[in-house]
Amino acid sequence: VTSGRAADVAIVGGGVIGLALARELAGRGRRVVVLERGETAQEASWAAAGLLSAQSDVGVPGAFFDLAIESRALYPAWASDLEAETGEAVGYRATGLVRCAFDAGESEALRGFLWQRERGLPLEWWDAPVLAARFGGALSPDVRSGLFFPEEGVVDPRKLTRARGVSVRVRGVEVRSRTAARRFWIEDGRCLGVETEGGRLAADAVVDAAGAWAAFDRELPFAVPVEPVRGQIVELDLGGSAPDTVVHSEAVYLAPQGGGRVLVGSTLERAGFARVVTAGALGALLESAARLWPAVRTARFVTAWAGLRPGTPDGLPILGDCGIRGLYFAAGHFRNGILLAPVTARKIADLLTGGAASPDLASFRVGRFRSGRAGPSPVSGPGVFR
Amino acid sequence: VTSGRAADVAIVGGGVIGLALARELAGRGRRVVVLERGETAQEASWAAAGLLSAQSDVGVPGAFFDLAIESRALYPAWASDLEAETGEAVGYRATGLVRCAFDAGESEALRGFLWQRERGLPLEWWDAPVLAARFGGALSPDVRSGLFFPEEGVVDPRKLTRARGVSVRVRGVEVRSRTAARRFWIEDGRCLGVETEGGRLAADAVVDAAGAWAAFDRELPFAVPVEPVRGQIVELDLGGSAPDTVVHSEAVYLAPQGGGRVLVGSTLERAGFARVVTAGALGALLESAARLWPAVRTARFVTAWAGLRPGTPDGLPILGDCGIRGLYFAAGHFRNGILLAPVTARKIADLLTGGAASPDLASFRVGRFRSGRAGPSPVSGPGVFR
Repeated sequence: VTSGRAADVAIVGGGVIGLALARELAGRGRRVVVLERGETAQEASWAAAGLLSAQSDVGVPGAFFDLAIESRALYPAWASDLEAETGEAVGYRATGLVRCAFDAGESEALRGFLWQRERGLPLEWWDAPVLAARFGGALSPDVRSGLFFPEEGVVDPRKLTRARGVSVRVRGVEVRSRTAARRFWIEDGRCLGVETEGGRLAADAVVDAAGAWAAFDRELPFAVPVEPVRGQIVELDLGGSAPDTVVHSEAVYLAPQGGGRVLVGSTLERAGFARVVTAGALGALLESAARLWPAVRTARFVTAWAGLRPGTPDGLPILGDCGIRGLYFAAGHFRNGILLAPVTARKIADLLTGGAASPDLASFRVGRFRSGRAGPSPVSGPGVFR
Repeated sequence: VTSGRAADVAIVGGGVIGLALARELAGRGRRVVVLERGETAQEASWAAAGLLSAQSDVGVPGAFFDLAIESRALYPAWASDLEAETGEAVGYRATGLVRCAFDAGESEALRGFLWQRERGLPLEWWDAPVLAARFGGALSPDVRSGLFFPEEGVVDPRKLTRARGVSVRVRGVEVRSRTAARRFWIEDGRCLGVETEGGRLAADAVVDAAGAWAAFDRELPFAVPVEPVRGQIVELDLGGSAPDTVVHSEAVYLAPQGGGRVLVGSTLERAGFARVVTAGALGALLESAARLWPAVRTARFVTAWAGLRPGTPDGLPILGDCGIRGLYFAAGHFRNGILLAPVTARKIADLLTGGAASPDLASFRVGRFRSGRAGPSPVSGPGVFR
């Protein structure tokens, strides 16, 4: 059974990555079908805090750092294009982000970011008097130093979701919700489409952008080592006491989303697909947040939720081709899906429409896991906060 | 303007106290009208954790202790009568309650309850081996001693609310929701009824059972020193890890409500009428609960809410007559409204139908505040947890 007309590209997964790619490909004239097991962008994309942290998150130089910086640089134009096309605000703001150190050890860890200056990337070392001048009494007086990254920012993940949904409709992408992909349709080492409960969808190219569910096809000749890493987020209303920049300690961050609304995150927990808010995580997030930004104690609790990030053994995404012709990956974005959506969409679209593999995706191919070179897990166990 | 037919008794306040009294009076053949500013039992009665703690809450002998013990003794029959009359379960269970001490100072404080043995009230001292045998590893191993009160229990406040609503309807009580009392209708030192926006309601007797709003009539010739004391509660789903008894530390309690559901409380905050859940309280409650009962860390967070208890300067209720003929108080029950509802209903009904003041209400008359003999506030400041 072949259902519907054939597509140029079938994308498995209607999250931030799948929809960004669909939009990009449709903008280049491709017929795109998105298969989404639930509703679009209701999983990790919806649950994210919307932090655009490239410099402050990735401590070491390398291909991943470059990718993150490139994507962050795309954001202003990408966000305004999306807003212009759809009439929907996406809440992008270059708020800056300050990482805070409570003691000498944490200060020393911040120094580990200073190499970025040689790359010409802006950052500012703020000692206690600067912090006091910048934040008055709003920041904990126990913070002894901070590193400010003025070009980091935030986006509102739910607004972004809505805008991207409008955009793909406008561009003629066919989105099939509540349509779970069962497996890739592979014959003679060539991917011909996707098999769903309702039948087969033929496509010239298939992209796995299924987030935490990217390993859905267990019959592939190689492993797709993606598994859910739960992240819990708390939404608070701080009113006039909300920070105007992202404030980040070792334990927690506060991401201002406008109107006094602040998202506090997050946990890193390997707990399967249980998208549950736990009392332990909630309590620890709130205590850590209040330690960093004391007004949190009197802030109104609005709600809390959990999302499932697509984690990989080395913490890096899985991007590009895989040895099976016609099958591509745009998966495993872990905590960086919102940030990396523009660059992922662009590079995977280049790959699909240009034909040749982009050399800067070489580090991210799924094949890297076959060699046993994968590094240690970025998650040391359940209940790790980050 | 006089609205509606006259009542034998008009009760201001449709919370647990007002409705319990209405039910009792209607059962004695009186025509009762209840005036409720919002919806019945949506304030403190709805927000309570449902703890029936008489022995474990009141540390000192006296009239209040006697009142609490008397009301607790009424509970089993009162609950089963209500269930039989209405067909609604109220979730009453004599679960027992264990107060836990983490250190020598807290253990010493528990010894302060041992005088109750002389009164013939049951309690059991549990040292660490007994606690370990009773709870296995579920209770924190840091708890060094406990005092178990086997006759304490819980009721489900929301089920109780529903059942009492059915009961008063069955008994012909007229409940006027969204009807705020503006002031008492007093002429020549005699209370003739209640004034509302819609007009006057004439009644032979009027009872102020308005909870945190009991001081609504600022024109009385004496002060009614009731003010809201906010309490925040967290609902968790502990599944099979829920305690089967109430577990109580200095900082927090866990009240099992069946089906793995546990209510964690509570704060004592003077914060006006703002019924807000704050991040600080939520975080502290969860951390304290997890310290006492470690399974809390992995428990599912369900929801959190805040209620406004009617606090008084000495922490005791305001019961009985007041010097103005026809005007009575059943107010200021602070943290004990659910527990004290049966005894309050009985004694105030005795007073209204028998005529003579019950001598055991003498300690609770509103007149005690005129003499300046009121003790210190039971609340030492905002953010106190109890």
